[in-house]
Amino acid sequence: MLLKTSADGSLRALRTLRQVVLASLCVCISFSAAASPAQEEDSAMENIVTEKKAEESHRQDSADLLIFILLLTLTILTIWLFKHRRFRFLHETGLAMIYGLIVGVILRYVVQVPRDASVVSTSCFVNASPATLLVNVSGKFYEYTLKGEISAGEVNDVKDNEMLRKVTFDPEVFFNILLPPIIFHAGYSLKRRHFFRNMGSILAYAFVGTVISCFIIGLLMYGCVKLMKHLGQLRGDFFFTDCLFFGAIVSATDPVTVLAIFHELQVDVDLYALLFGESVLNDAVAVVLSSSIVAYQPQGDNSHTFEVMAMLKSFGMFLGVFSGSFSLGVATGIVTALVTKFTKLRDFQLLETALFFLMSWSTFLLAEACGFTGVVAVLFCGITQAHYTFNNLSPESQDRTKQLFELLNFLAENFIFSYMGLTLFTFQNHIFNPMFIVGAFLAVFLGRAANIYPLSFLLNLGRRNKIRSNFQHMMMFAGLRGAMTFALSIRDTATYARQMMFSTNLLVVFFTVWVCGGGTTQMLSCQRIRVGVDADQENSMSFADGIERRSTKQESAWLFRLWYNFDHNYLKPILTHSGPPLTTTLPPCCHPLARFLTSPQAFENECQLKDDDSDLILTDGDISLTYGDITVSTDATGAHTSGGGGPAADDLDGELAYGDHELVMRGTRLVLPMDDSEPSFTGHLRM
Amino acid sequence: MLLKTSADGSLRALRTLRQVVLASLCVCISFSAAASPAQEEDSAMENIVTEKKAEESHRQDSADLLIFILLLTLTILTIWLFKHRRFRFLHETGLAMIYGLIVGVILRYVVQVPRDASVVSTSCFVNASPATLLVNVSGKFYEYTLKGEISAGEVNDVKDNEMLRKVTFDPEVFFNILLPPIIFHAGYSLKRRHFFRNMGSILAYAFVGTVISCFIIGLLMYGCVKLMKHLGQLRGDFFFTDCLFFGAIVSATDPVTVLAIFHELQVDVDLYALLFGESVLNDAVAVVLSSSIVAYQPQGDNSHTFEVMAMLKSFGMFLGVFSGSFSLGVATGIVTALVTKFTKLRDFQLLETALFFLMSWSTFLLAEACGFTGVVAVLFCGITQAHYTFNNLSPESQDRTKQLFELLNFLAENFIFSYMGLTLFTFQNHIFNPMFIVGAFLAVFLGRAANIYPLSFLLNLGRRNKIRSNFQHMMMFAGLRGAMTFALSIRDTATYARQMMFSTNLLVVFFTVWVCGGGTTQMLSCQRIRVGVDADQENSMSFADGIERRSTKQESAWLFRLWYNFDHNYLKPILTHSGPPLTTTLPPCCHPLARFLTSPQAFENECQLKDDDSDLILTDGDISLTYGDITVSTDATGAHTSGGGGPAADDLDGELAYGDHELVMRGTRLVLPMDDSEPSFTGHLRM
Repeated sequence: MLLKTSADGSLRALRTLRQVVLASLCVCISFSAAASPAQEEDSAMENIVTEKKAEESHRQDSADLLIFILLLTLTILTIWLFKHRRFRFLHETGLAMIYGLIVGVILRYVVQVPRDASVVSTSCFVNASPATLLVNVSGKFYEYTLKGEISAGEVNDVKDNEMLRKVTFDPEVFFNILLPPIIFHAGYSLKRRHFFRNMGSILAYAFVGTVISCFIIGLLMYGCVKLMKHLGQLRGDFFFTDCLFFGAIVSATDPVTVLAIFHELQVDVDLYALLFGESVLNDAVAVVLSSSIVAYQPQGDNSHTFEVMAMLKSFGMFLGVFSGSFSLGVATGIVTALVTKFTKLRDFQLLETALFFLMSWSTFLLAEACGFTGVVAVLFCGITQAHYTFNNLSPESQDRTKQLFELLNFLAENFIFSYMGLTLFTFQNHIFNPMFIVGAFLAVFLGRAANIYPLSFLLNLGRRNKIRSNFQHMMMFAGLRGAMTFALSIRDTATYARQMMFSTNLLVVFFTVWVCGGGTTQMLSCQRIRVGVDADQENSMSFADGIERRSTKQESAWLFRLWYNFDHNYLKPILTHSGPPLTTTLPPCCHPLARFLTSPQAFENECQLKDDDSDLILTDGDISLTYGDITVSTDATGAHTSGGGGPAADDLDGELAYGDHELVMRGTRLVLPMDDSEPSFTGHLRM
Repeated sequence: MLLKTSADGSLRALRTLRQVVLASLCVCISFSAAASPAQEEDSAMENIVTEKKAEESHRQDSADLLIFILLLTLTILTIWLFKHRRFRFLHETGLAMIYGLIVGVILRYVVQVPRDASVVSTSCFVNASPATLLVNVSGKFYEYTLKGEISAGEVNDVKDNEMLRKVTFDPEVFFNILLPPIIFHAGYSLKRRHFFRNMGSILAYAFVGTVISCFIIGLLMYGCVKLMKHLGQLRGDFFFTDCLFFGAIVSATDPVTVLAIFHELQVDVDLYALLFGESVLNDAVAVVLSSSIVAYQPQGDNSHTFEVMAMLKSFGMFLGVFSGSFSLGVATGIVTALVTKFTKLRDFQLLETALFFLMSWSTFLLAEACGFTGVVAVLFCGITQAHYTFNNLSPESQDRTKQLFELLNFLAENFIFSYMGLTLFTFQNHIFNPMFIVGAFLAVFLGRAANIYPLSFLLNLGRRNKIRSNFQHMMMFAGLRGAMTFALSIRDTATYARQMMFSTNLLVVFFTVWVCGGGTTQMLSCQRIRVGVDADQENSMSFADGIERRSTKQESAWLFRLWYNFDHNYLKPILTHSGPPLTTTLPPCCHPLARFLTSPQAFENECQLKDDDSDLILTDGDISLTYGDITVSTDATGAHTSGGGGPAADDLDGELAYGDHELVMRGTRLVLPMDDSEPSFTGHLRM
């Protein structure tokens, strides 16, 4: 009802627009470079027309945006109803898509907009298209900014249906405004302990797996395209680089639906960490991979042949951009950590939160300004912020920042998904080719399989805590595609190949979100993956067999142990208030520096075993357990204290035991987008 | 250092831009209306150039935005230092301006940017300037969107200094993106009880006072302009409507600096409420007033004569737009209240907060789409949300929404003020006319005086709780100008008169924020206004003299009592869970409806005296006091319970006593942008 009204409003606005705008008549061009035009008489009438036009355009924009706001509102209300009734088959993102689809159908078929006279076509045979164009309209100068190139076929569409074009957002909006908060939130809420425990496997899936998937899909699609050309089904160019590009963008998994259900049903933490970690990192890999493929530019005229030099250049670019973005993100995170450590900003939570927000945002801008990838930088910034800065924040700012990014993530995500639904009908250049679509679905399936199964086999050779086959099937099943795939494929829809990719990607996203997302609970029970792992139950069970826990120490990968040592002994003490004082871990020659860098709190905690890492993991209650000769008590704030236990070596020993302890606490509440039910004063107790 | 780097980065980016862009050569025009251009061969080289250009432009944008982010970060760190050292002479907004000024000077005088070839001037003698222009550049179509008109004198500037133009934001950004959260936050944090107690006076100052101020300033400026013309100092047109427009936009006060100090020093709550209430509402009045003045359009050619019909039309427009925006804002607030009341959305705080945010935003868009003023609608939406919806929210969402809008307000406000500083040097069309500036300062002073003193005299005739002369002087002094004046005057800088106004307004803002804002503490002590009014002290004092408190009941204005009755008996029960059940207040014929609308909680509270109004006021601790025959205990949640005390009539009696009680608690923490030190679990106790 409300939607109908707003659609009607837009229609009315457009009609008025048509009346206001005068048809362009005589056209003639001259260069008025640095001329000094004489002061002219302002015709009052003309001014009014211009003003009214601007006003109408503004109204129209407001109405368009309003459609999306109302869509999101509707989504929220419906999803509440679903949650209220514990209906798990449809996630909010799936629902947002459905509503988007409905509004798209209405805009496309119900609202009929007359041909618009406000678009004037002019052709000047200039060599390049300048970014800013000054147009001298009967003596007055108007400034025009370049919006983009329009393919010859679109010219008619532009004039035909201004309405549909109006609800079409600038594709860069997704990449530069909506995606960063989503990615930052993913990094910021990464379960750090479990992430680091499974770091090797996650990196393998994310890097090796994504590259495998990209090339498998690319090759399969190339075969498919060749076949299509043979059958005469292809109406435009489709090169091998296009196929690889398709492989790269469709390899970015986004199992937001699955993870929400995992969280709700309290599924195994390791499976959760593997899936979440992989999906977060492979987004970054896919972004950089796709931009490297686009940058593949062999010399000479024939730009689509294979050339070793160009490929090496692309590969170098991949490494350069990825490491550059990574370093920038980590660097900003470290700067923020240092600022929050060495100032008493925590006394003013608003300033603290604002600083945190601004610094995190500046990572994105800095990376983009330097020519790196902002989204990737923001991801690693988020991880660094969560690992270090978060510990320096005041408890209130910890809540505030978590809640802020949670909200931004929620809004951005649902906006993107509802826009996806809308765009299926409002996008003007869809190319749905049945053969390509079938080929794509097959390739996506096989690409995922070629990622998960062989890698899991290889990883299991090295892992003590094997990735069981039902976990593998679940990971295979949970390869949903989402916001990242969409944002990457809508960015450039200029060529025939890109348009076909975009349309196909939309279908892939719809299918995976609805079918795979909706079938998660069925799949879980089908694979006999234990759900509802209760924290207390697991806890008491673990007391029974101490031997099993002992073994976890050896189980930890060397990469994890190496990293953990370094992080605990040097990085944590430098960047946060916790950890052992640097004076005990650094060689004696560095003691003056160490004294300067170590915070007073660290000296106080000297003989304590404190690890804030578990902040995000243990918040449910006070647990104390005895392990070997160290008595450990864990309070609600995640600060551990142990009697006995000497310096470094023993600490690590004890802390790896915590690793266990947390492994055991499988069912403990995970920090997830949807969850904020922990009492908000948990942090108050810790000073 | 960082700033320098980013400025250098921009410079480098621009140089590259210049190399990339080719000079436009041959120009020729043709109509390519609905032609179907033949598929052309894409020259790879051309594609690369276009892509590189877009990339460079994006980098440049990121670098520009980065400048502001770093400015804000710097402001935050400095302001922390000031707060840390209790240095009260400079508020964060004043500091943001100073940093903006410095960066403006650097951009203007230090960074020398070469003449830019990316702007191409083209003149087509078309009758109107279309919103979208399709340009056919050697066979390819590019879409250009209208950015705005450029005065003839600016044409050279546009080409000369692209850099300065780049850091110049679209003026509508301020009005449509940055102002709404500021205004909403003002409405949302309006201290409601004290606001309603002083409602009559606040409305008088805001409506009558602003109109008086507008006309006084307008007339004085008209005299000044006449004199300037006589002395030959005027180089362009300056009509009476321009003078009135200047009066309207400069009448919007924004004493954010003063209020922050008031809050910090715990100044009298009534003075605070008067100043804050006035400044919030007169923004709304000034916006609508200025748009009505712009709409003043006498018939015929001579558009600047006085005409009764046109004036009446303008007046009607003022009433229409104001009441329309008001109704829309209130309506959205009421819808949100009803939704949050009748759904159990409070079980899912994220959904609740997101809904609240979206509904509040949709008010703005809806108002703009309907042709009303979004900012005004948002203000009244904020007030309604605070008065009704806030009570329906879960305690966590109450915190979340408060903190969210606090943060948005902080960021937007400081962004605007730092932009103000920047624009003093980077804006290209400043017209600083010493005579006009002196005249404006005088007029602003006299206009404020003509608002405060006569109105206070008249109001004191009706008020029991007189506005003392030192309060009047303080209000006079606190007439700072800020974000609203700036946003209104930067919106349109096309004509000579508007440019002169803009430059003068900048100086008025700078002067008032730095001088008046910085001198607040001195002024307070000079006027002998009591500061540091401690809650406990006031409280114990009030126990001593019960007579004085008794008198407050009669003191309350009839408007307040009338409104209070209606609100308490009908609106609160319908829109929130509190208040008496509707079945007791509505006539018997409406009982079925009443039963439907009354929430179960209201029935439970039937014999309790509950008023959530004080949520925002009493949060400091548990206070219990005895008043007459009613024993009252106020717990930390602001829920009052009283033994005894019958239905409606007695309730009002008792509640007015609360009014007193709160009057007495002068020093209690006010809810203010800077303040969020209340423990965040206050609400947890109340279910």
